[in-house]
Amino acid sequence: MERKPTILDVARAAGVSKGLVSFALNDRPGVSSETRARILGVADDLGYRRSIAARSLSTRTSFALGLVIARDARVLAADPFFPAFISGVEQVLAEQGRVLVLSVVAEPAAEESVYRTFAADQRVDGVFLTDLRERDSRPALLAELGLPAVTLGRFEGSGANPAVVLDDANGIRAAVEHLIELGHERIAHVAGPRGLLHAVRREGAFRGALERAGLDPSLVVETDFSAQQGAAATTGLLDLAEPPTAIVYANDPMAIAGLGIAHQRGLRLPDDLSVTGFDDSEIADYVYPSLTSARTRPDQWGAEAARTLLALVADGTAPDVDLAPAGLVIRNSTASPRS
Amino acid sequence: MERKPTILDVARAAGVSKGLVSFALNDRPGVSSETRARILGVADDLGYRRSIAARSLSTRTSFALGLVIARDARVLAADPFFPAFISGVEQVLAEQGRVLVLSVVAEPAAEESVYRTFAADQRVDGVFLTDLRERDSRPALLAELGLPAVTLGRFEGSGANPAVVLDDANGIRAAVEHLIELGHERIAHVAGPRGLLHAVRREGAFRGALERAGLDPSLVVETDFSAQQGAAATTGLLDLAEPPTAIVYANDPMAIAGLGIAHQRGLRLPDDLSVTGFDDSEIADYVYPSLTSARTRPDQWGAEAARTLLALVADGTAPDVDLAPAGLVIRNSTASPRS
Repeated sequence: MERKPTILDVARAAGVSKGLVSFALNDRPGVSSETRARILGVADDLGYRRSIAARSLSTRTSFALGLVIARDARVLAADPFFPAFISGVEQVLAEQGRVLVLSVVAEPAAEESVYRTFAADQRVDGVFLTDLRERDSRPALLAELGLPAVTLGRFEGSGANPAVVLDDANGIRAAVEHLIELGHERIAHVAGPRGLLHAVRREGAFRGALERAGLDPSLVVETDFSAQQGAAATTGLLDLAEPPTAIVYANDPMAIAGLGIAHQRGLRLPDDLSVTGFDDSEIADYVYPSLTSARTRPDQWGAEAARTLLALVADGTAPDVDLAPAGLVIRNSTASPRS
Repeated sequence: MERKPTILDVARAAGVSKGLVSFALNDRPGVSSETRARILGVADDLGYRRSIAARSLSTRTSFALGLVIARDARVLAADPFFPAFISGVEQVLAEQGRVLVLSVVAEPAAEESVYRTFAADQRVDGVFLTDLRERDSRPALLAELGLPAVTLGRFEGSGANPAVVLDDANGIRAAVEHLIELGHERIAHVAGPRGLLHAVRREGAFRGALERAGLDPSLVVETDFSAQQGAAATTGLLDLAEPPTAIVYANDPMAIAGLGIAHQRGLRLPDDLSVTGFDDSEIADYVYPSLTSARTRPDQWGAEAARTLLALVADGTAPDVDLAPAGLVIRNSTASPRS
C-alpha cells in the first residue's frame, strides 16, 4: 500500500510552511486567496485528504448524524417502520457525504447514556429523537449536552426542537370512519405501548372517532407492537362474549398476526372480521386478504427529518415540517359485517 | 450549559505543563507511572474527557465499525434480515462503547465509494462485508484501502478476510428433504438474485437435494427478494400446465406473498400447496397457515460478526467462525400433497 501524503508533503511541494498549509486547508483568515488556491491545488494533485478526525478538530464538525433507538431487538426486526425510516435518512445523507451513526439499546436509560457519549466524543452533529414519551427527559438532556435534535412528532406545548410531524392520528380516524361507513358498530383497537406518545395519540384518535359516532370506544388492548402480542390481543378480543366485528391495529405485523388468528379460528375474512393495519408495509399488499392499512411513508419521513436536522446543524434553527397526513389504503381485509 | 474542562484546566489543577498532560493522557513514554496516575486522577475529578477526534488522532482508532448495504431501499425495509442482523451487531458494540456507522446505497458502485470515504476519513476501524458476489471486487479494494473486513459467508477459495459463516444451504436442503419425505415430487424454488453468492448457494442446495432424490430440479424462478416478485413468481408457477405441489422460497416475505397468492386462487393450504420460507422471521409463526421456515438467527450472526471484527481490528487477525447450520422449523404450511 502506498504511503498517504501528509501535510508536510503538501508544504514541501507548495514551498510554504506546514502552518500555512493548515491555515489554507481550514479556510482561516491570514492567507491570500491566491496562495490558498495554490496550496489547495497542490494538495489535490498529491491526493492529500485530511482525516475526519483532523477535520473534526479544526471545523468542530462530525459529518455524521445520530439515531438511537430504545426498543427490544426482536420488535425492531419485526416492524418495518425503522428500516424504512432509516433508508429515507440514508438517501439524504448519501447525497451530502454524511453518514448515520446508529445505536440500538434495550431501554431509555441506555439511550441517554449513548447521547452523553455522542456529545463527549463529538461523534455526531445532531440526533433524531424518536418514540416521544410522556414526561420525556431527553429534550432537556440534549439541550444540556448541546446536541441539536429534531423530533419525530411533536411534544404537547414545548417546542424547543424542530419537529417533523406526520398526522398519524388521521390514519386511525380514517380507518374507523371507513369501518363505520361499512356498517360496523363494535370496533376494537389493538394499540401500541401507552408509554409512547404516538401510541397514545392513535388510541385517542380511535376513541374520538367512535365517540363522535355514538359507539362504544372501550375495546382497546395495549401491546408492545410485536406480532406475538398482536396475536394474543386478537385471541382475547374474539373470546369476548360480544366480540368485535372489526379490529384496528396500530401496526401491520400485529394486523397480519390478527388475520392469522382469525383464519385459525375458521372465521371467513373479511366477512366475519374486518382488519386494518398501520404504516402500509410492502407485505400488506400480498397477505390474504390483502390488508387495508394507513399509509405513513416512513421513508419520506426519514428523508424530511434528515433534511431538517442538517439545516438545524448548519443554521442553528430550522422550521417544523408537517408532512401529508396518513391516508387509508383500502384493500380486501375490510368489508361490511355479516348481519 | 457549563463550560467543558480543557486540557489546560487539567494542567493547571495538576500543576504540570499542557504537554505533560497530553503525554500522560495518550500513554506515551517519558511520564513516570506516579505522575501519570496523578494527572489521570485530576482529569477524572474535573470530568475532563478527550473528544473522539482528539483520541482518534492520538490512537488512530475510530471506535466505530462500518456496514454498507447496497440494496434497493424498499427491499431493505421489507426483509427482516438486516434489521435483525444489525440488532445483533449493536448488542455487542453497545457493550464495548462502540457504534455502528451505517450507509445504505442503491448500488455496488456507490458502496465502493463509501469505503473510500470511510478509509480517507478514518471513519471506521473495520467493515462488515455482506451480500458476497461472484467476481467480487470489494476484498481487493478494502485491502488497498487498509480497511479490516469480516465477510458474512465465505468466498470460494480466497480467504484474505475472516469469515463468519452460517451454512444456509443446509436450511434449503432440510426444507427439500422434508417435502420429499411428505411425498412431494414436483417442488419449485423461488430464489434470490443470482448476483448474490448466498442466493446461488441456496439454489445449488435446492437442485442438489432434488437430483439426489431423482426428481426434476428445473423449477427455479429468480427474483430480487421482494414480496412483489415473490408473488409474481408464485403466479407463474401455479399457472404452469403441471404446477408444483410445493414451493421453497428464499426468504419469508416472498413465502408469505406466496401464501397470499395461493389463498386468492382458492387453493386449500397446505393440502393443495406446501410452502417453506427462509430466516424464520417473527411473523412466520403468526401467518396462516403458520410458516415452515429455515431458522438462521440473523441476530446471532450479527453478534458473532461484530465480535470477530473487533478481534481483527485489535489483533490484526481473527479465526473464521462457523455458526450452527440453519435448521428447519416445521409448522403448518407444509403437508403431504393431495393424491
